[in-house]
Amino acid sequence: MRRSSSLTSPSAVVITVGNELLSGRTVDTNAAWLGRFLSDRLGIEVDLRLTVGDEQNAIATAVAQGMARAEIVIVTGGLGPTPDDLTREAVARALNRPLLLDQGLLDQLTGRFRSAGRPLPDANRRIAMVPWGAQLLSNPLGTAPGLLMDEQGIQVVLLPGVPREMNAIASEAAAEALRRVFAGRLPDIRSRELHTTGVPESALAGLIGDAFPSGFGGVRLAFLPEETGVDLRLTVTGGTASVGRLDEAEAQLREVVKPWLFEAPETGDLAEAVLTALRTRGLRLAAAESCTGGLASKRLTDVAGASDVFLGGVVAYSDDAKEALLGVERKIIDSCGAVSEEVAEQMARGALMRFGAEVAVSLTGIAGPGGATPDKPVGTVCFAAVHGDQAVVRRSVFPGNRDGVRQRSAQAALALILHLVDGRLTPPLD
Amino acid sequence: MRRSSSLTSPSAVVITVGNELLSGRTVDTNAAWLGRFLSDRLGIEVDLRLTVGDEQNAIATAVAQGMARAEIVIVTGGLGPTPDDLTREAVARALNRPLLLDQGLLDQLTGRFRSAGRPLPDANRRIAMVPWGAQLLSNPLGTAPGLLMDEQGIQVVLLPGVPREMNAIASEAAAEALRRVFAGRLPDIRSRELHTTGVPESALAGLIGDAFPSGFGGVRLAFLPEETGVDLRLTVTGGTASVGRLDEAEAQLREVVKPWLFEAPETGDLAEAVLTALRTRGLRLAAAESCTGGLASKRLTDVAGASDVFLGGVVAYSDDAKEALLGVERKIIDSCGAVSEEVAEQMARGALMRFGAEVAVSLTGIAGPGGATPDKPVGTVCFAAVHGDQAVVRRSVFPGNRDGVRQRSAQAALALILHLVDGRLTPPLD
Repeated sequence: MRRSSSLTSPSAVVITVGNELLSGRTVDTNAAWLGRFLSDRLGIEVDLRLTVGDEQNAIATAVAQGMARAEIVIVTGGLGPTPDDLTREAVARALNRPLLLDQGLLDQLTGRFRSAGRPLPDANRRIAMVPWGAQLLSNPLGTAPGLLMDEQGIQVVLLPGVPREMNAIASEAAAEALRRVFAGRLPDIRSRELHTTGVPESALAGLIGDAFPSGFGGVRLAFLPEETGVDLRLTVTGGTASVGRLDEAEAQLREVVKPWLFEAPETGDLAEAVLTALRTRGLRLAAAESCTGGLASKRLTDVAGASDVFLGGVVAYSDDAKEALLGVERKIIDSCGAVSEEVAEQMARGALMRFGAEVAVSLTGIAGPGGATPDKPVGTVCFAAVHGDQAVVRRSVFPGNRDGVRQRSAQAALALILHLVDGRLTPPLD
Repeated sequence: MRRSSSLTSPSAVVITVGNELLSGRTVDTNAAWLGRFLSDRLGIEVDLRLTVGDEQNAIATAVAQGMARAEIVIVTGGLGPTPDDLTREAVARALNRPLLLDQGLLDQLTGRFRSAGRPLPDANRRIAMVPWGAQLLSNPLGTAPGLLMDEQGIQVVLLPGVPREMNAIASEAAAEALRRVFAGRLPDIRSRELHTTGVPESALAGLIGDAFPSGFGGVRLAFLPEETGVDLRLTVTGGTASVGRLDEAEAQLREVVKPWLFEAPETGDLAEAVLTALRTRGLRLAAAESCTGGLASKRLTDVAGASDVFLGGVVAYSDDAKEALLGVERKIIDSCGAVSEEVAEQMARGALMRFGAEVAVSLTGIAGPGGATPDKPVGTVCFAAVHGDQAVVRRSVFPGNRDGVRQRSAQAALALILHLVDGRLTPPLD
C-alpha cells in the first residue's frame, strides 16, 4: 500500500463521525472548516468527504476507503469518553493495531481532574487508550488529544468533534506534524484577502477580467461571495520569494475594486471598518432603524469594544415612535410616507441630536412580506447618514425575502456611513 | 443486485456534489436538511453520506457505492446548465443508461423562457437530456426537474443543489414517488413538537425520566437542543389509529415541562410566542437594550407582522444614552452601576413611557470580553419587564463568549415578558 512519494501536494479524505450529522440535527460545519483550513493554510485539497454514524464497522470501513484514496485521512468526532465514542476502537481495527494504555496521557488526565478538585471519572480512562504507535496531538482546550498514525506512508489523523477543540488541534499540532511529514511537498502558501461590499460577484469578475485579462502573473484570485459582499482572496505559492508578486497583485487589484473596498483585518465585517474609521477621527455614532428592527445596531455591537464609538440607537418601528423618539415631523410622514428619503433624513438628524453623536445613520423601508404599495414595492429602503451639516441620502430596492432585505439594508446603512466619513464605498450600489 | 423487499424501512445514502462543498466555501446545509426530512417525514434513516467534487468519475463511483449499500440513493447538485454540472452524465454512466432528449421537457423549458421574453439558451438544452427511463420530479421553483430512476429495485433520486428547489422537489414529487414505491414499508409518522426555554437539556431529561420512567407507551421522545432552548419531539408510527396515544403523551409531557413551555406554531421562536401573547391581550411592547445592542428588538422584528405589537426600542449602549433617551437617573447609575437591577427597571419604565407602550422589557449587562468587575463577572446581565405598575426584575450570570451571552440574554428578556403577562416560564431559569 506504500505510495511512491510524488512532488505534487498530497490530497485528503475527510471523515466526519456522528449520528447527529446523518440525522441532520447538527449541520456539519467541521467538514467545511477543515476544507477551508487544509486548502488555504496547507495547500491540501479534500478529494472526498464521508459522514458515518457512531458505529465501529461504518467508521472502520470509511477509514479503509479513505486510505485507498488519499495520503491523508482525517477523522473528526467520536474521541470523547462516552460509550458512543467509537473512533479509537474503529481505527485501531482498521489499521490492525492494538489499543494500549498510554500511562503518560492517563497521568496527565488524572492531574487535570485533580487540579479541578475531582477524581478522574472511570469513563474518561478510555481517552488514555491509544492505538499502538500513535503520536499524540496536543489539545489546548479539552481532555482528548488528537492522534496521528503513519500507516505505510498514509497519515491517519483523529480529531475531536467539538469544533473549537478540533480547530485548535488542527491549526497547531496537526498542521505542524503534516508539514513535517510532507516536508517539501506542501506549498508555502501566502495569501491576502480583500473585502468588498455593494457590488455583485459577476460585476466584480467582469471589471477585474477587463483590467487584467491575463490574470496576476502566477498569483491566483478566488471570489468568495458572502451574503453581504464579496471577499477576494489572492494566493501565491513559493514562500518569501513570491511575496513581491503578491504585493504587486494586491496593489493592482485594490486599484480596480477601490470603490467597493473596506478594511476589516480582525473580523472581515464592514461594522469593524465603520467603527475604525469613526474611532480614528474621534467621531461617535448613533443609529435610527425602522425595518431592520435593531439589526444595524446589533451588527455594530457584535464587534467587541464598540462602546467607545457607538452610543446607541433607536428602533422606531411605529410612526409614533419616529415622532416621539426621533422628532420626525408628522406632516412629513403624512406627505412623503414613512418610507421616504425625507423621513430617513429626519430620523438620522433626530438620532444625532438625541444621542449627542457626531455621526448618525438611519434607514426606513419595507422588508415584507406585507406593507408594499404600488410605488413602493417590498424591498424599498431609504437611507440617510449625517455628519454635522453634511448629509447623504439614498433609496434602494433590494431583492429577496424579509430576512434578505433586512441583511442587505443593514449592510447598505453601514456602507453609507463609511461613504460619508471616509469617502469610501462610492457609489454604495445594491 | 435486486434485493428482497423487506418489511423494515429502507435506508438511504445521500451524495452531495460540488467543489465548493469539499473546499468548505459552502457549508453543506442540504445534507442536514435531507437527513431531517427523510427521518422526520418519511421514516427513512440516512446510513452514509458522501460529498464529491464536480467530476464525473467521482460522482459515478459514489453512486455505485451508494447502490451497494442502500435501497435509496439521493444525489443533490450538478443538475444545472453549466459545464461543471455533471451529475446527469455521471449517473447515466453509473447506471449504464443512455442520455436521451426528453422532448416534452425541452418544450416546457422553451415555453418557460419564451414567456419570459427570451429564447432558450443553448446551455439550458442540456437540462432536457435525461437518463433513459427516468421519471421527472416536478420543480415548482426552477428549470431543472428532479429525476428518479428505479435500478433493479434501488431508487436513485437526483435533485438540484439550490436549497429551495431541492427542498420543494423533495417535499412534494420525490416524497410522493418514494411513498408509492415503498408502499407499506414506510411508517405513517405523526409527530408533535413542544418548545421549551430556560432549562438545560440534562435537567429536562432528568425531570421527564423521573415522571415517566417507562416512557410514553410506544411514543418516542427526542430532545432537540438549540442555542436558546430545547425542543421536544414526540413521534408515533401507525397512522390515524395512534393519534390518541400521541395526544395522551403530549398532554402528559406538557404537564411535566409546563414551567418552560411556550407556543410558537409558525416559527418555533420565543419571539412569536411573546408577540402572540401580547396581541391577544391588546398590549403593545417597547424594548430598552444595552449589552445586546439591538438583538432583542431584531428577534421580535424577525417575525413578519410584528408591527402591530412592537412599537420599537432604544439601544442605550452608553450611560448618557440611558439618561437622555430613557430617563435613567444619573445618581442611580453612579450608585448601583450601569449593570444593576435598579438601572434595568428604570430603563424599562423609561421605554414604556417614551414609546407609550403597555409593556416594556429591558436588559443591561456585560457581554465581554472586557468590562468585568470583581463582583460583576462577564456574563452578568440584569433584566426588567414592566406592565403598568407591575414589574419583574432578574439578574443572571450567563456562561459563554460575547455572542453566546448576547444570545442567551435576548432570549431571557423575551422569556421575562411572557412570564409577566402570561404567567408562563416560571421561573425563567438560565
